[in-house]
Amino acid sequence: MSIERELFITEVALRDGSHAVAHQYTTEQVTQVAKALGEAGVPYIEVSHGDGLGGSSLQYGLSRTNEMELIEAAVSVCGSSNIAVLVLPGIGTIKDLKEAAKLGAKMARIGTHVTEADVAAQHIQTAKELGLETVGFLMMSHMASVHKLVEQAKLLESYGADTVYMFDSAGALLPHEVKERIHALRQSLSVNIGFHAHNNLSLALANTLAAIEEGATRIDGSIRCLGAGAGNTQTEVLVAVLDRMGISTGIDLYKIMDTAEEIIAPILQAPQEITRDSLVLGYAGVYSSFLLHAQRAAKKFGIDSRDILIELGRQKVVGGQEDMIVDVAAELAKNKAIYSV
Amino acid sequence: MSIERELFITEVALRDGSHAVAHQYTTEQVTQVAKALGEAGVPYIEVSHGDGLGGSSLQYGLSRTNEMELIEAAVSVCGSSNIAVLVLPGIGTIKDLKEAAKLGAKMARIGTHVTEADVAAQHIQTAKELGLETVGFLMMSHMASVHKLVEQAKLLESYGADTVYMFDSAGALLPHEVKERIHALRQSLSVNIGFHAHNNLSLALANTLAAIEEGATRIDGSIRCLGAGAGNTQTEVLVAVLDRMGISTGIDLYKIMDTAEEIIAPILQAPQEITRDSLVLGYAGVYSSFLLHAQRAAKKFGIDSRDILIELGRQKVVGGQEDMIVDVAAELAKNKAIYSV
Repeated sequence: MSIERELFITEVALRDGSHAVAHQYTTEQVTQVAKALGEAGVPYIEVSHGDGLGGSSLQYGLSRTNEMELIEAAVSVCGSSNIAVLVLPGIGTIKDLKEAAKLGAKMARIGTHVTEADVAAQHIQTAKELGLETVGFLMMSHMASVHKLVEQAKLLESYGADTVYMFDSAGALLPHEVKERIHALRQSLSVNIGFHAHNNLSLALANTLAAIEEGATRIDGSIRCLGAGAGNTQTEVLVAVLDRMGISTGIDLYKIMDTAEEIIAPILQAPQEITRDSLVLGYAGVYSSFLLHAQRAAKKFGIDSRDILIELGRQKVVGGQEDMIVDVAAELAKNKAIYSV
Repeated sequence: MSIERELFITEVALRDGSHAVAHQYTTEQVTQVAKALGEAGVPYIEVSHGDGLGGSSLQYGLSRTNEMELIEAAVSVCGSSNIAVLVLPGIGTIKDLKEAAKLGAKMARIGTHVTEADVAAQHIQTAKELGLETVGFLMMSHMASVHKLVEQAKLLESYGADTVYMFDSAGALLPHEVKERIHALRQSLSVNIGFHAHNNLSLALANTLAAIEEGATRIDGSIRCLGAGAGNTQTEVLVAVLDRMGISTGIDLYKIMDTAEEIIAPILQAPQEITRDSLVLGYAGVYSSFLLHAQRAAKKFGIDSRDILIELGRQKVVGGQEDMIVDVAAELAKNKAIYSV
């Protein structure tokens, strides 16, 4: 398989950005955004609950609108763009995937924690059988060694993924760390390499440039930076910078700027910025879902929630291990008491 | 003179950030911010009108509070931090500088357009005579060749500046361009090298890291990103990232985060984000003061203001040449008419 040299951007404001609007997108909003993105020439537009198909729940946040309705609306107006859907095995099911494909989704993006690629096998195979272009991705990639990351990426490739993405889910990586990881992936895989950044350390765009320099050809962006934490790589800014560098994305710069300014910005209740909370998440390298738990535990034990988050990052605690948050808080409070004596 | 190896941050939220609040800071706000910054261990805190001492005017925006009152307030609460003032010769006078020194300012930062260092000679000499630590800086540095930049920087050094800063005033530089420029300055000068970034292309932090890698030891930051255009390098994020890299700034991470979140954020009427306007300024590489003029001219001639700004950047039009904006607009409108026939 020949490695592609062009660059393809996937716009994630209607999926990762769903976190930033508490999953309250309306069909009208999605229609308006998807139409404008299509007209701007964005090749892929992801539409799903922030946590992927099936994410609407008390645990992950209830969607205002059934995501299948949003996908159908986006498909109907996106012109020559392709609608992508996100699936996290354990949350999204094969049934969800088939339904989305039936509604006209053309790409499936199937992700797991960086050390658990094997749970994606069945979903990737089904997506391929459905005739979908298929992305496998690894989340919280800063938590794994380069060796482990490559090993897991190769699993995704072996299941049939056309593209393997590295997600910097906590926005915790520095540019030289992205370079090292993408370089290793490029050396070891024959499929397309992709990169998804978060801006918690104000490095999303720089990390994206580092990934492109090392051979990533599939890049996620989000207009007006809309996404979980401090948001993603800001698409319209990325298009402008790549244009300055002579790298074509096929996206119309003025149209993508206008979409961000005139369509997305008015939807937002609060602009995306790097707050204390999002900075701590990036600095500690932990899941954003830990934040509220850590703040509650901090209150209970009379300590700083940042100390808890940093310790959780140090111990590489992952999603699903939320019980450990109270244990860590109790331990920190005990140590604090000892040192205060 | 030995080249310093430590890193010293100058916080500019009370000067460059003044643009973001339309120069409406109150004495109470400045007191609160300067006290918190002092307690966080920030070595230098700049306090002046956004366009420097004497900037309060119809042309540059009227300050709500006399800046000398703000400087005096900041000096009285900043503890072991040093208050810096900004002077743009032509706007700020020797008299202003002497008054600020008398009130307790310890550092003068004297800047010119990147090709006009010679107008700073008298101000730098006076600042030195007043016993102030003295910075000379070159604005809009992306407009000059590396050769020209070095030539002008050497002039500032020859006038007696302790430190020479490169300002990326339009946020137009890419990391490799910053590296090349700072490297050349480090090779050619014996004084400290500083760097001041803007975030219009979402690269302020990455550009700052590039400058540090090449030997810059004086860095400007702004809590909550507060500054002209899309703002500056976000101080609390920079401190976190440098901490991750093992580079000490002497600033307490939690305290600077808290100052940004609890003191600065509530002052803002609108958070600092990369809007269409600020992105266009960075992409075109032009002064922010051109924006309104270009938008008016665009309306008059029925063209897109972005085309005007990009053409102004291409022609390297500088501040003071605002008359050219209408000429450029007229020329673009004429060409558009010809091509439309």
